[in-house]
Amino acid sequence: MKGKGEASAAGHPMAHKAAADELSAGQKLEEDDQVVNPWTVTAKEGGKIDYDKLIDKFGCQRLDEKLIDRIQRLTGRTPHVFLRRGVFFAHRDLNEILDAYEKGEKFYLYTGRGPSSEALHLGHLVPFMFTKYLQDAFKVPLVIQLTDDEKCMWKNISVEESQRLARENAKDIIACGFDVTRTFIFSDFDYVGGEFYKNMVRIAKCVTYNKVVGIFGFSGEDHIGKISFPPVQAAPSFPNSFPHLFKDRKDLRCLIPCAIDQGESGKMSASDPNSAIYVTDTRSSIKKKINKYAFSGGQDSIEKHRELGANLEVDIPFKYLCFFLDDDEELEDIRQKYGNGEMLTGEVKMKLTQVLTEIVERHRVARAAVTDEMVDAFMAVRPLPNMFD
Amino acid sequence: MKGKGEASAAGHPMAHKAAADELSAGQKLEEDDQVVNPWTVTAKEGGKIDYDKLIDKFGCQRLDEKLIDRIQRLTGRTPHVFLRRGVFFAHRDLNEILDAYEKGEKFYLYTGRGPSSEALHLGHLVPFMFTKYLQDAFKVPLVIQLTDDEKCMWKNISVEESQRLARENAKDIIACGFDVTRTFIFSDFDYVGGEFYKNMVRIAKCVTYNKVVGIFGFSGEDHIGKISFPPVQAAPSFPNSFPHLFKDRKDLRCLIPCAIDQGESGKMSASDPNSAIYVTDTRSSIKKKINKYAFSGGQDSIEKHRELGANLEVDIPFKYLCFFLDDDEELEDIRQKYGNGEMLTGEVKMKLTQVLTEIVERHRVARAAVTDEMVDAFMAVRPLPNMFD
Repeated sequence: MKGKGEASAAGHPMAHKAAADELSAGQKLEEDDQVVNPWTVTAKEGGKIDYDKLIDKFGCQRLDEKLIDRIQRLTGRTPHVFLRRGVFFAHRDLNEILDAYEKGEKFYLYTGRGPSSEALHLGHLVPFMFTKYLQDAFKVPLVIQLTDDEKCMWKNISVEESQRLARENAKDIIACGFDVTRTFIFSDFDYVGGEFYKNMVRIAKCVTYNKVVGIFGFSGEDHIGKISFPPVQAAPSFPNSFPHLFKDRKDLRCLIPCAIDQGESGKMSASDPNSAIYVTDTRSSIKKKINKYAFSGGQDSIEKHRELGANLEVDIPFKYLCFFLDDDEELEDIRQKYGNGEMLTGEVKMKLTQVLTEIVERHRVARAAVTDEMVDAFMAVRPLPNMFD
Repeated sequence: MKGKGEASAAGHPMAHKAAADELSAGQKLEEDDQVVNPWTVTAKEGGKIDYDKLIDKFGCQRLDEKLIDRIQRLTGRTPHVFLRRGVFFAHRDLNEILDAYEKGEKFYLYTGRGPSSEALHLGHLVPFMFTKYLQDAFKVPLVIQLTDDEKCMWKNISVEESQRLARENAKDIIACGFDVTRTFIFSDFDYVGGEFYKNMVRIAKCVTYNKVVGIFGFSGEDHIGKISFPPVQAAPSFPNSFPHLFKDRKDLRCLIPCAIDQGESGKMSASDPNSAIYVTDTRSSIKKKINKYAFSGGQDSIEKHRELGANLEVDIPFKYLCFFLDDDEELEDIRQKYGNGEMLTGEVKMKLTQVLTEIVERHRVARAAVTDEMVDAFMAVRPLPNMFD
């Protein structure tokens, strides 16, 4: 499973440093034969993505134990499982935002989604689950950008269809449990304009065509909508893009939980799109997908497995459990027993089926409870007077 | 004086035909050694722009006597001096819009200005004077786009300064006498968003980078704001960009009075920017500029002049009178007497000084009467219930 995350902190809005770093990262990487940009994730000679190299090249730092302890201290909460297990493993300037937080300065969170499909798969939920934890732990406001404009341009679907998908996806996002008193969800088609558009123009002035080509690999036959899109996604990093929330403040920092790559995350088999587990899947289809697609690190025969144990490095069911099984002790127990051959792949897959079915079931119930009025409430352009409390 | 105009009619909004034609015109022209694009106007080997060639290359037609007569018949008014004297001399699909108008179908007008300077010169007023005539004659609504975003990006002035200039320029535009019950003036920084932004995205999807480079001559080191700007200026051609005026109508035609080139229009000497007559100039500075800069077609000595008369083809004071002297008989009289040597250049320059001073004086008085409340009224996003009456 790819889509491992990083947390990126945007500093003083007018410096544009974070945004510029973000943008230059993909370019540098291509020199090393592994290509990571928003549409392509290719490892050197078909191997694995070297995330250590990625961290270096992207100008990130490891999100280490010390930092995780610091988060625990500052928030008074057990760090999220995605932190404890290294799902979110890199960051940029997170120390600075924590320094400021420690002094009583607040920040805000920004994440988003390109609404290209009706239903989300589990990989899509990962950043939202983590963002919800950050919101609850730090008690800070959150803006969620639905880039319906992007999907209209890239997927060649109509404006109306993009907007419909954005609203459907908003329901899935709301179902993750965000706090309506601290969360503003917006569709670009609805919200671009005014102060937000002014920041788009300010950002566009700082980025040349050659720069975006280096980063994203556009060609001359790409339409100009693609070329002009980066400012739309950079504008939310600046608090004055949201005057109803932050007035004309320019000094508020922005923390962006995001994936370091955007590959086939969430799929059990990288090559098969059907292998992703969707939040609309039933228990029986989850079971089938796990049994059919989740590559096992177990041995060929039971005898050999009892003797050698599973290779946990390549075992997909175990990897999924690392993501989604909350209980640290139970996970450790499985690691031991599966690793030494006491547990069989079938048992681990059964456990995973149970864990994922619970998550999907819980999500389905929560999503069914999301009304159109709730969507309107989250998407209303309104002040959030208690967003920092 | 360049900046000769054409009237362009945009057809069914979703066909994009007119906009695409508009965009491809500059490209074609460069093959012939004369370059005409929004920033460059260069004739072959330093000669004059060949406007006949320009009309062909831009896919326009001559705005001939027959068409001018038709406009007179349809509006029941004497055609504007700019039509009678060939200042607006080309068009695209104007016949179609008149066919529709004759059947009772209405259209709307769209023009605009990039607010890059505090004060306008007379060349800047030409399209607005003509547009006011069209609005009065056809009794149709008008949208005026102030591209403060464009100027912020091209002139590298701040968002705030661009917006200030836009408001100042709006006062000059309002002073031309537009009807507030039929006119919507908007600043891009204020108005881009919603349905307007949706159309920007739809347009952007239809235009490749290679296409805009061919037209506008951008380089890879140009910033992406420039590359993404064409849709901002194309969006007003589509009525559903203005839902407060036209709801979701897509069938309303748009007539765009515009300059066929955007060179040194309004200057008495093409090479000297000080030679332009500004609406803020006094009588004495107008007199000085005319005497100093307006190239005379008169002869070297009075004796020779009385004998040969002036060369009206190259005489700038006479050209200006053709633009700004309303009285056809008086102009004809001057053409005769100056052409045969009865009148001297000094007399013609004096007449021009009087004509321009009157225009500038009238404008100054009208502009002084434009209050901030009036600007707000013109720029309010509001329905115009009587705009077609």
